[in-house]
Amino acid sequence: MSTSVEKTLLSVLRTIPDYPKPGVQFRDITTLLGDASAFRRAVDELVHPYAGQKIDKVAGIEARGFILGGAMAHQLSAGFVPIRKKGKLPYDTVRVAYSLEYGIDEMEMHRDAVTPGQRVMLVDDLIATGGTAEAAVKLLRQMGADIVAACFVIDLPDLGGRKKLEALDVPVRTLISFEGD
Amino acid sequence: MSTSVEKTLLSVLRTIPDYPKPGVQFRDITTLLGDASAFRRAVDELVHPYAGQKIDKVAGIEARGFILGGAMAHQLSAGFVPIRKKGKLPYDTVRVAYSLEYGIDEMEMHRDAVTPGQRVMLVDDLIATGGTAEAAVKLLRQMGADIVAACFVIDLPDLGGRKKLEALDVPVRTLISFEGD
Repeated sequence: MSTSVEKTLLSVLRTIPDYPKPGVQFRDITTLLGDASAFRRAVDELVHPYAGQKIDKVAGIEARGFILGGAMAHQLSAGFVPIRKKGKLPYDTVRVAYSLEYGIDEMEMHRDAVTPGQRVMLVDDLIATGGTAEAAVKLLRQMGADIVAACFVIDLPDLGGRKKLEALDVPVRTLISFEGD
Repeated sequence: MSTSVEKTLLSVLRTIPDYPKPGVQFRDITTLLGDASAFRRAVDELVHPYAGQKIDKVAGIEARGFILGGAMAHQLSAGFVPIRKKGKLPYDTVRVAYSLEYGIDEMEMHRDAVTPGQRVMLVDDLIATGGTAEAAVKLLRQMGADIVAACFVIDLPDLGGRKKLEALDVPVRTLISFEGD
């Protein structure tokens, strides 16, 4: 990752102290998405290593992963697959549980959203503990997808999400890293 | 709207009978989004009348409007603005109530998401009664935006949403129309 991309993106990212609770530095990506050139740069940087490859689908994790994923799918001429919280998809789904700070929740994907062997990129705005991303990987692999990469604008490496995905043999691409978060 | 675009998009749209309740034909856009060429065609058709104009922002309505809006913003080299259900945005917001079938809910937008005079396109997957789209128009205008157009892949004209927006002097662009829904 070139320093200049990270600098550009950092300059338009907003940090909200003590949100949603004391001690947490919330990384608010909406100011980056709202900046036309930063948004374009982020999307182009995420996809450019894969631009020469055949990518069948981009799978976005609800909800901010939909914004980046829609742009990436369009840029790569791929289809888009929504991965959603349970109860939001209208057709036959596969479902996987994942852990929250307190308790568990479930992610869903339409059963026919990918077919065996399709090459898929996974995307969300940020990777922290990697719980939802790991659930998304399981859903995609359950239906036979070949996960080419998981992409995130922001990495919080201390929370272990990147290592969790790499242990599952998923290549991870991120643009900004905050250590110590 | 050329018939060929509508035909192409209709051929990949899924209709789920009696969802979410008996008598409703649910128009499931996920099969269209998942088809690479249909997704690209839908996005390109929505934006092409505005491609020569300066568009500052594309505002997408949660959640399916994020997928289309992310792609449209990238294609137009515009910024993206999320319009969300209340309680989901981390910074200072403006808020507008809208009617649901039973009761009311509220939509929010960051107060600094648009600045006065910015030219904005609004997008969602479908317009039915137009309640959320009307709330989004109010939010954008409250912050001084100039709404260039509101775009939807699917129009259910019998439910009155298009007329509601046109009465507010918002130009409406749609690609597929289901009368009798």
